[in-house]
Amino acid sequence: MMKKIKGLIAAPFTPMHEDGKINELAIADYYNFLKANGVVGAFLNGSTGEGVSLTNEERKHTAEQWAAQAKKDSNPITLINLVGGTSYQESIHLALHSQEVGMDAIAVIAPFYFKPGSAEQLAEFVMKVGAAVPDLPVYFYHIPVLTGVDIPMIELVKALHGKMPNFAGVKYTHEDFMDYLSCLHFADGQYDMLWGRDENLLAALALGAEGGVGSTYNYAMPLYTKLIDDYKKGDIVSARQLQQQSIDMIRLLGKYGGIGTGKAFMRYVGIECGQFRSPIKPMTEGAYDSFVKDVDALGMSELFSKSE
Amino acid sequence: MMKKIKGLIAAPFTPMHEDGKINELAIADYYNFLKANGVVGAFLNGSTGEGVSLTNEERKHTAEQWAAQAKKDSNPITLINLVGGTSYQESIHLALHSQEVGMDAIAVIAPFYFKPGSAEQLAEFVMKVGAAVPDLPVYFYHIPVLTGVDIPMIELVKALHGKMPNFAGVKYTHEDFMDYLSCLHFADGQYDMLWGRDENLLAALALGAEGGVGSTYNYAMPLYTKLIDDYKKGDIVSARQLQQQSIDMIRLLGKYGGIGTGKAFMRYVGIECGQFRSPIKPMTEGAYDSFVKDVDALGMSELFSKSE
Amino acid sequence: MMKKIKGLIAAPFTPMHEDGKINELAIADYYNFLKANGVVGAFLNGSTGEGVSLTNEERKHTAEQWAAQAKKDSNPITLINLVGGTSYQESIHLALHSQEVGMDAIAVIAPFYFKPGSAEQLAEFVMKVGAAVPDLPVYFYHIPVLTGVDIPMIELVKALHGKMPNFAGVKYTHEDFMDYLSCLHFADGQYDMLWGRDENLLAALALGAEGGVGSTYNYAMPLYTKLIDDYKKGDIVSARQLQQQSIDMIRLLGKYGGIGTGKAFMRYVGIECGQFRSPIKPMTEGAYDSFVKDVDALGMSELFSKSE
Amino acid sequence: MMKKIKGLIAAPFTPMHEDGKINELAIADYYNFLKANGVVGAFLNGSTGEGVSLTNEERKHTAEQWAAQAKKDSNPITLINLVGGTSYQESIHLALHSQEVGMDAIAVIAPFYFKPGSAEQLAEFVMKVGAAVPDLPVYFYHIPVLTGVDIPMIELVKALHGKMPNFAGVKYTHEDFMDYLSCLHFADGQYDMLWGRDENLLAALALGAEGGVGSTYNYAMPLYTKLIDDYKKGDIVSARQLQQQSIDMIRLLGKYGGIGTGKAFMRYVGIECGQFRSPIKPMTEGAYDSFVKDVDALGMSELFSKSE
Repeated sequence: MMKKIKGLIAAPFTPMHEDGKINELAIADYYNFLKANGVVGAFLNGSTGEGVSLTNEERKHTAEQWAAQAKKDSNPITLINLVGGTSYQESIHLALHSQEVGMDAIAVIAPFYFKPGSAEQLAEFVMKVGAAVPDLPVYFYHIPVLTGVDIPMIELVKALHGKMPNFAGVKYTHEDFMDYLSCLHFADGQYDMLWGRDENLLAALALGAEGGVGSTYNYAMPLYTKLIDDYKKGDIVSARQLQQQSIDMIRLLGKYGGIGTGKAFMRYVGIECGQFRSPIKPMTEGAYDSFVKDVDALGMSELFSKSE
Repeated sequence: MMKKIKGLIAAPFTPMHEDGKINELAIADYYNFLKANGVVGAFLNGSTGEGVSLTNEERKHTAEQWAAQAKKDSNPITLINLVGGTSYQESIHLALHSQEVGMDAIAVIAPFYFKPGSAEQLAEFVMKVGAAVPDLPVYFYHIPVLTGVDIPMIELVKALHGKMPNFAGVKYTHEDFMDYLSCLHFADGQYDMLWGRDENLLAALALGAEGGVGSTYNYAMPLYTKLIDDYKKGDIVSARQLQQQSIDMIRLLGKYGGIGTGKAFMRYVGIECGQFRSPIKPMTEGAYDSFVKDVDALGMSELFSKSE
Repeated sequence: MMKKIKGLIAAPFTPMHEDGKINELAIADYYNFLKANGVVGAFLNGSTGEGVSLTNEERKHTAEQWAAQAKKDSNPITLINLVGGTSYQESIHLALHSQEVGMDAIAVIAPFYFKPGSAEQLAEFVMKVGAAVPDLPVYFYHIPVLTGVDIPMIELVKALHGKMPNFAGVKYTHEDFMDYLSCLHFADGQYDMLWGRDENLLAALALGAEGGVGSTYNYAMPLYTKLIDDYKKGDIVSARQLQQQSIDMIRLLGKYGGIGTGKAFMRYVGIECGQFRSPIKPMTEGAYDSFVKDVDALGMSELFSKSE
Repeated sequence: MMKKIKGLIAAPFTPMHEDGKINELAIADYYNFLKANGVVGAFLNGSTGEGVSLTNEERKHTAEQWAAQAKKDSNPITLINLVGGTSYQESIHLALHSQEVGMDAIAVIAPFYFKPGSAEQLAEFVMKVGAAVPDLPVYFYHIPVLTGVDIPMIELVKALHGKMPNFAGVKYTHEDFMDYLSCLHFADGQYDMLWGRDENLLAALALGAEGGVGSTYNYAMPLYTKLIDDYKKGDIVSARQLQQQSIDMIRLLGKYGGIGTGKAFMRYVGIECGQFRSPIKPMTEGAYDSFVKDVDALGMSELFSKSE
């Protein structure tokens, strides 16, 4: 089984051309940018990467491009590919491809049209995918706000425990700290519980989180690196202050229309990712200048990731 | 533009073998069974058909099989294929295939992972698919209980009106009669508003519905045919009584675990469709006998569809 | 037991002075206005009447004032008083007072802070109030959108049937027509199922509704009287058209900020009811002129209720 | 203005006799029990105390009894009385009474029938109550899971800041740590942000919480006292373990039917509080023995509060 991940994993945006096609050339720069800023892995084709809005071919291409970068790297970052969706058979197809191209792990999500009504039904779905790639670690991606499936993870973990040897853990994008702590403690802490809410990373650290996956690690790594360092060395007041700065930054997403604002942050730090694909609403034409003013006003330029 | 559909369209189940593969041979019998019982069309790859749980290849195969039956028929029923999903580009791919194999119309659904926040965003998504098949009528499939997208259809219809010539109307699977009536009256009743809630068809008829799409039309057509006839000839008391019998029948779906019970009704009327695919929970082993007793106890055998 | 109510019951607004105190003098005029326009009853202290925002003393005063009008009337309209809330003991107190002052019936609502989790728990709560006034008919007021309690009424009716002799029926303010029809048919139609959604009265009539309670019956009785007449004489096209006009009128509530707009409609028809009480947002100062233009533009002046 | 509260406040149950009447005699013992176990205050008539299910008279009596105990005590615990409800005028009445009997502070809750749609509307409601008792500190009790009002507290705090001198802070019973941290940091930490979720107290401590209000502080104070001590002295691993034990204990509430189980815990620690009042479902007859076995099996007897 894979070792637990320590550190922060970015969920990359999918760089696109003006015509909406994927900009594969950008991925080489993106990989190097993340690594240079201290990111330890990439969670591909997730919510930030608009996986569900891509075709299966595009999802495969994206995985191939990232894998190609890792192959060139003597000390590569960890690559996890989200293969989940509403059809477990399509997921198996993508899982096999992930294995082929050399992903380190895959992730499965709760089917979000027909929603499983129990942990057992959800576990059955996850195991069908996992069984197709027994040598690949499988994470479950828990994000009820988007899937509408709010089954406590402690129930899923119990339902999978002892039945799915390649179950690695959970990318936990939810606010149920009671559930999260229970998973951390389950079976002597056997499962890798990656925290998925950047805006309350500090609370997760207090509970024992050691790894995280998020979208703002794409562009504000220095902030989070310092937050973790300060927490570890006992400077909790500074850690809280940094978390507050993270929150102030994240509030700008809401102000400028939500998830579509993420690529504006990337442009701000020098990595052009183009626009989002429908149904995600792109940032309004002309709003970028006002956005930049707001970001500058945060006064935290040294906390953003640096491109060359 | 296609004429409005008058009468009832079944949303077929996808017949499956024991091993979970699609049972394509069954489709010929299924087609004839529906037509013989008075169904005027089939809505393929919808919720009842588990479209989202199938692979794209399976969805295409299903469409091909139904199209093959229609081609053999001198007076074929109308075929509408749901091509929607979370990726408009996959939808375009399926839409082009639908056109190729001779579907009469396609349907698009609200993307159900990233949920459009306004009628305009939703309209943009729908138009991207529609523009790829300008000669094919396009229905919007409105089912908020599964998609989580509860934008009033009168707003979507207004947003598409005058901008999407092949927009045909809505399969309306929701209980907002205020919204539904507004759509029926919009633009002199130009759009085809297919009612999608079998359990309150009578209320929809009173408001002016002339067509419907549903899953219980797969197996209880005599009930609904009589309900419509009685309503039309003014015997409202009998129509209400039939609607009540439809409700009593539909309540058994809930009692036996939901959507998974539908294929048990098919088996009851002589059309073997196998099991559902994960994540839909199949009817519990052994529950079928108890189910049959409950159906018999409804005392409505003459109201179920008849196989040879 | 009381006979079933046939016809339309208004849920009166609570007239208030500029300083927010109840304007009791206005109630005499209000009573006569409703009756003159064909209303058959008044549902007091309900949502429209802001019952939950009043003190218990005010609720009692309101009941007393309406009772005083009815007493002066040789052929009085039916008065139903909502005594419900979160404390069944306060409800008993108000129920006893209702009996004392001569209400024709009372109504109880689901407790909306601690929400009953089953029909049995809800029935227990209702019966505690009902048992205190065994000679007074008791309606259950079903309005899940405000209470958050969405237990099907057929389950509540079954739980009360045979156990609560003074249970009269339900004021049904919800869109579950399947549930509503089942209640209409239960026990040979023994219970009085008053329809509570003015915007789809026509659908309810088709299912068999004979009585209704609503807020727009305060000011647009001619519209609904004609709608019912047209439906009864078979002119369904005209009935649908009138329902559409009702919907267009109701949409103005949304446009001008919701429930707070109701008193603007009253002012429009000549009955001054003052403002709403916090937390209901009153119509914005200055919006009334624009509102009047919009109402005039509906072109339905003859369908509004008439004051002297 | 009152100083910030440091330490844990219990939200007492309302002791009842077999016949459902309030057991006032029990309150003296209850007061002493809480204080002896290290509780620094009592939050009266809250959710745990079933305030909304009591009559206004009972709420006043309850406040009087607790005040009487405090008066006898040379170093009394802090008493906060929830006066909120759906009618701000009833709340004013209760607020004035609270002042009269010597409460240290009052609390107001979002009106939960008509739900304010903005922070401004909610602030207006709160200020109306606060203005009636300008010398009494006023807390806002934020509990969206019961009120259905999920306005971020940072917006409410901003709306009240500078306009309501006696606004003291928030009893924060919700999981939005991003919002909570923002409130802690607002205006140099001027407002008292009492944490209201016992099951994740540790995360709140990490963010800077210094006071908390909860129901399990009624019976498991040694657990939380040790958790806080361990956290403060840097033994985070032990603190996490204690939080896990708190969670395991709290899970028993769910297993035995929810809030109604709370009084069983009180009986377990020797304080008889009787049953809950409808609509809260009491623990099933006979379930208590099984409950005791489950509590014993937690193996944490030394972490429960001690009665004489």
